[in-house]
Amino acid sequence: MKNKHLPSVLPSVSVLVSGSEILDGRVLDTNSHLIIETISSSGLSISHTLSCTDDLPTLKSCLDFLSAHSEIIIISGGMGPTSDDLTREAASDWLGLALTERSEAREQLHEFYAKRGRTFDQSNHKQVLFPEGALIIKNPRGSAPGFLVEKTIGKSSCWIFALPGVPGELAAMLHDSVLPLISEKILNLTHPLEVVPPPALRLFGLPEAEVGARVGQVPLPAELTVSFRASFPEVHVLLKDRLRKYNTTQMHAFAEQLAKAIGPEFLISRSLDVSLDMVVHELLGSKCQSLAVAESCTGGMLGEFMTRMSGSSRAFFGSAVTYSNAAKQQVLGVKHELLDKYGAVSAPVAAAMANGARLQFQSDLALSITGIAGPEGGTPEKPVGTFFVGYSNGTQSSAFKCIFPNSRSRIRRFATFTALDILRRQLLSLQSSWPQELESAEQ
Amino acid sequence: MKNKHLPSVLPSVSVLVSGSEILDGRVLDTNSHLIIETISSSGLSISHTLSCTDDLPTLKSCLDFLSAHSEIIIISGGMGPTSDDLTREAASDWLGLALTERSEAREQLHEFYAKRGRTFDQSNHKQVLFPEGALIIKNPRGSAPGFLVEKTIGKSSCWIFALPGVPGELAAMLHDSVLPLISEKILNLTHPLEVVPPPALRLFGLPEAEVGARVGQVPLPAELTVSFRASFPEVHVLLKDRLRKYNTTQMHAFAEQLAKAIGPEFLISRSLDVSLDMVVHELLGSKCQSLAVAESCTGGMLGEFMTRMSGSSRAFFGSAVTYSNAAKQQVLGVKHELLDKYGAVSAPVAAAMANGARLQFQSDLALSITGIAGPEGGTPEKPVGTFFVGYSNGTQSSAFKCIFPNSRSRIRRFATFTALDILRRQLLSLQSSWPQELESAEQ
Repeated sequence: MKNKHLPSVLPSVSVLVSGSEILDGRVLDTNSHLIIETISSSGLSISHTLSCTDDLPTLKSCLDFLSAHSEIIIISGGMGPTSDDLTREAASDWLGLALTERSEAREQLHEFYAKRGRTFDQSNHKQVLFPEGALIIKNPRGSAPGFLVEKTIGKSSCWIFALPGVPGELAAMLHDSVLPLISEKILNLTHPLEVVPPPALRLFGLPEAEVGARVGQVPLPAELTVSFRASFPEVHVLLKDRLRKYNTTQMHAFAEQLAKAIGPEFLISRSLDVSLDMVVHELLGSKCQSLAVAESCTGGMLGEFMTRMSGSSRAFFGSAVTYSNAAKQQVLGVKHELLDKYGAVSAPVAAAMANGARLQFQSDLALSITGIAGPEGGTPEKPVGTFFVGYSNGTQSSAFKCIFPNSRSRIRRFATFTALDILRRQLLSLQSSWPQELESAEQ
Repeated sequence: MKNKHLPSVLPSVSVLVSGSEILDGRVLDTNSHLIIETISSSGLSISHTLSCTDDLPTLKSCLDFLSAHSEIIIISGGMGPTSDDLTREAASDWLGLALTERSEAREQLHEFYAKRGRTFDQSNHKQVLFPEGALIIKNPRGSAPGFLVEKTIGKSSCWIFALPGVPGELAAMLHDSVLPLISEKILNLTHPLEVVPPPALRLFGLPEAEVGARVGQVPLPAELTVSFRASFPEVHVLLKDRLRKYNTTQMHAFAEQLAKAIGPEFLISRSLDVSLDMVVHELLGSKCQSLAVAESCTGGMLGEFMTRMSGSSRAFFGSAVTYSNAAKQQVLGVKHELLDKYGAVSAPVAAAMANGARLQFQSDLALSITGIAGPEGGTPEKPVGTFFVGYSNGTQSSAFKCIFPNSRSRIRRFATFTALDILRRQLLSLQSSWPQELESAEQ
């Protein structure tokens, strides 16, 4: 929903991550992005993100810099009980406020430790100290509380949020406390800021550049931004409305225009939370069909995808990973004449593997993958990246050919997605020019 | 090798990432960490990393801030040909130098486009402009060259590297040009700075806290820092020597002390580049043993791991993913009496699955996994996270029991690692108290 009470000029937010462990390469900073994602999906903008080492003068000079460019500073890290946790000292020094003990924080910490069978002792003392007048922010998942404090600079205010650096605690406090406090205390909104996930399209089968070209032909209002994320081998398209001008229904209508221009057959789902394996399970369930698979170069990846969801055994019966020709014959009943005549990486063998898996596992449908994942094993006729997907439904078996020259791990992942997508299209009776169907024989 | 010419006081380096697409959440910044990793493994320290939006006043104020705290600033991004690429304008403005066209850059760009069958036109003109006197840094992988330029501030110098934001191009230029230029032009070293990968231990089977406690008992020189990275379900221990006081042999001797204290049975490998599946393949190869696997709750993940390397078919014959009881009987020959009496998630069934896989695929050895990955399906006797690993070597079959209550995806990954690690320990004849061996029957 559109927040009608969002002011036209919004305060700008900056991020300060305190942590020597980030700057010496020990730890990858994921908190900056977490804060950016949460804050920007509520409609606010981030001006800067800054990481610095844990020492008092450095932290204070960073606060000087950021307060000159933003009205809200969110600090993450340095809130623990040890001597290199300096956020509370740096903030109170910079604000010119004393650090004082707060009894409500002491009580909460006593409770936190008691619940875990530990005792609150002097080593944790720092965590009950706050700059005078600070508003304490509860930590629902850990021991370190955060705080919010205001500094007046000239005629304007700068607000400092100090939060722990543990990502799970930080995420919970951003949602539970920071967004509501920005709404109530800083923006004086009657409705709290809401995190509105942008409409999203998950796509497979079109290169990112081609998706971009097709999206570019859709006339959209200038306020909307379309962003693309490659999440190999998928492409995700997100549609954002920074100014919150349009409501959810309007936004989804714009997203449908994009989907239509891209080609609905490439659309896996309309939510970042719904993956290709989930869609396939949903379709199998709605059509009361069971599936088995046979894999060669993917080594088990297709089965692994089909068992990511709890309860997947309702539709998924099993997989035969037949890496050797002997196993293709022994486990799947592929005839050695086929292997001799066409080779293991061929349309007839892919179709026979799918049919063999269907019979072996007594399923309604079956998929197979056989290919050359490299880096060795390619030939001029069948270069690295060549793979065949077999499909069998009890009345016929067919095979599809793809060539995707790339690294071994990407070829395997791409082949797994291709097989699942071929099944999705079969279940939806979608026509497609890609990939090429080669064999289709009555059984 | 120790760089004997490394001065005792090293310049500090800061990072500026230019890109609105990072601050609005469209793109995750990975360049800061890439620069941190490269620069810090050469022995230099990073003081700050800062990201800002693409506009001239903002970029210039960031340069003001960073130049007050570091002698070297590495800028990434904003080097493309479009109007929102402003790094060259911001740097030249800030330096007080004109932007001038450089013929050698124009020639290189003409060549770059000609090779790709495209023509260099006016829209790319910006990429041949550089602040006066700048040293041009070649881009071996893309069109945008970088540059290095010096600014004198009072008695000292500040050096600005401007590099493109495409991660592959940035990585190549950091190694090929930035480290050599820092060595020669800034530090005046006779030997270039080298990136020395720190000794590393890859561990599986001990929680991170326990690894930390065991490492804490090893007396190490104060200059060395030990860092821990959880790379689920492994723990990686890195040993760093920021001052380059010790040579490679000495550093590896310290790392061996750590390995001994941790317990060598938990050590997968001594290199971040050598993974558990590689170690298992190496051991299978050296002992001329072949492997097959049978999987239930992991759905194919174990086979997928065993086929990550090219040429894995030499030792890995295949996998039977038998998700249903019917498939366990039909494909692996598990007797229905065993399934009825003990249930599919049990030591006898795990052992029978391993033996069945060995016979079906005619391999020397076999592993199996059967378990409850959840979130549904747990019982008081067999809660979610319970799994059994079976092992069969032709003379006997055995089973190991583990309980790892966690999310579905983590249970599956942990079970896969556990099975591979049990095989590793069997092949190395390592004794271990974990996991518990339950069944061991002659066949």
